[in-house]
Amino acid sequence: MAVYTDITDEELNALLSDFDLGAPLAFKGIAEGVENSNFLLETQAGRFILTVYEKRVREDELPFFLGLTRWLAQHGYPSATPMIDKAGEALKRVRGKPCAIFSFLPGLSVRRPTAAHCKEAGQGLARLHLAAEGFPLTRANDLGQEAWAPLFDTLREAAENLKPGLAAVIEGDLAHIAAHWPTDLPRGVIHADYFPDNVFFQGPLFAGAIDFYFACVDQLAYDIAVTLNAWCFEADGSFNITSARALLAGYEAHRPLTPAERAALPVLAHGAAMRFFLTRLHDWGATPAGALVRPKDPLEYERKLAVHRSAPDLVLLGEAS
Amino acid sequence: MAVYTDITDEELNALLSDFDLGAPLAFKGIAEGVENSNFLLETQAGRFILTVYEKRVREDELPFFLGLTRWLAQHGYPSATPMIDKAGEALKRVRGKPCAIFSFLPGLSVRRPTAAHCKEAGQGLARLHLAAEGFPLTRANDLGQEAWAPLFDTLREAAENLKPGLAAVIEGDLAHIAAHWPTDLPRGVIHADYFPDNVFFQGPLFAGAIDFYFACVDQLAYDIAVTLNAWCFEADGSFNITSARALLAGYEAHRPLTPAERAALPVLAHGAAMRFFLTRLHDWGATPAGALVRPKDPLEYERKLAVHRSAPDLVLLGEAS
Repeated sequence: MAVYTDITDEELNALLSDFDLGAPLAFKGIAEGVENSNFLLETQAGRFILTVYEKRVREDELPFFLGLTRWLAQHGYPSATPMIDKAGEALKRVRGKPCAIFSFLPGLSVRRPTAAHCKEAGQGLARLHLAAEGFPLTRANDLGQEAWAPLFDTLREAAENLKPGLAAVIEGDLAHIAAHWPTDLPRGVIHADYFPDNVFFQGPLFAGAIDFYFACVDQLAYDIAVTLNAWCFEADGSFNITSARALLAGYEAHRPLTPAERAALPVLAHGAAMRFFLTRLHDWGATPAGALVRPKDPLEYERKLAVHRSAPDLVLLGEAS
Repeated sequence: MAVYTDITDEELNALLSDFDLGAPLAFKGIAEGVENSNFLLETQAGRFILTVYEKRVREDELPFFLGLTRWLAQHGYPSATPMIDKAGEALKRVRGKPCAIFSFLPGLSVRRPTAAHCKEAGQGLARLHLAAEGFPLTRANDLGQEAWAPLFDTLREAAENLKPGLAAVIEGDLAHIAAHWPTDLPRGVIHADYFPDNVFFQGPLFAGAIDFYFACVDQLAYDIAVTLNAWCFEADGSFNITSARALLAGYEAHRPLTPAERAALPVLAHGAAMRFFLTRLHDWGATPAGALVRPKDPLEYERKLAVHRSAPDLVLLGEAS
């Protein structure tokens, strides 16, 4: 949950006076996103989400994120899209912090995705990759493969504290991933954090995606690998091949994979597990006791790493064809 | 902010299957109320708030609170009202905890009420007292005047820690309040926590009240005293007579005070300040460092106590007539 910034009715009225959205009818802090403060805002013009950006989001990157979600909406992809004020601006300020007002995207995220949900999610991911084609702005993936070894250099001790002997195992993983990492797969805008809590459904159907604050330009199939890891593992740590097959079938219904993309899935999934293991390990150590946001357990992704290390072809069994 | 209980989509679907509210369309934890977990719930039937009761609310008191808000809605008073399931039940359970689904009450609370807001709030309070007439259930005020001296017995040391010498001053206040406390003023259902964050406006107009979890049967004028303390002090600690006059005028537009009620306002306001001083002092000491909910500063009400102690007639200058 996260509402770090308090907005008074006076500050809200001042912000809304720049827009053509009418008077506010309801305003409630909501527990969504961990990187910023979010508020449900109802005005005479409809329902919106006010997002106030906290220090973890770099302000100079906001034009990319806001521009991307506007682009996606204009190209038929369901995501929360920022409203433009009377002067044509989407990026605003409230209480000295950057903010934006987004359209309200209805839908519910699922806690335990079924194979049917995975198929829908796969379709939604492919539609995202296609809708983003031609988006003119670019942003490097600062948590991409090249960043992992330097990041791990700062986390050796944390890894050993988590599990004695783990540092050497991770080093082996990093070397394997670096040696096999593809570099010439089709590139484009990826979500890079397409987890179940960032995907909305209406009943059984995909309804849209939120939280594009890790979006960047990278190899598209890496986004699939992140998604396979996030959606297709059971609570007991086992990889659900049925779900993976459904996810890939859903994806390929809109955008078939190239043979090179398919062949790269094992190392991409291994690397995607590394990315989330490392950032969770970092956040685990960096979060003070009693903090408002509890960090996610790095061991979940340590187990996923182990699966991809010991059974690299497992994700290939989820191939659609 | 408060979302203590996590509800999965599966648990939500199971709960909703008991109601005639259709399928869920959106579901978000919201930062409202500190005693329980609240979720914005949109279904095919409209918008609702799901409240999950945490341990601070006694389950055997829920029929009073739920019955009261249903009664108020049926008698034309705008408040969130609990929905009844197919079996006629309002009090339900989810994840082993009691819960209820309330109608969504639109409106915004104001941070710094003007005199005009105070007048509207006064009207809203009188309308509440009148609408509740005839409500058949009853609940004693367990934080009423008789509870304060025993509560303070447990807080002497905390008071001294807050401000050396304060314990003796509070004891003097308690003796004064006990000696002058009225017992035969008109009684009825009071809100007992009618603070600005529990009162909604639509533009400049009163739109309804929420959070009835301190409601009980007590002297009606005590509710006015709580409200005067909550709405009519400036940030610098001074009492705003213009706001108090507006609040009382708004109240008396619907329910004129008796001479005895008017005469009792100084001691009622002194006592109402004592009630919130004591519970804030209690919560201040009882809240562990790093807790999710930051306790409110007891010094705010210590200053209000000082105002009523040194200038008991101040609230009378706010008299409507």
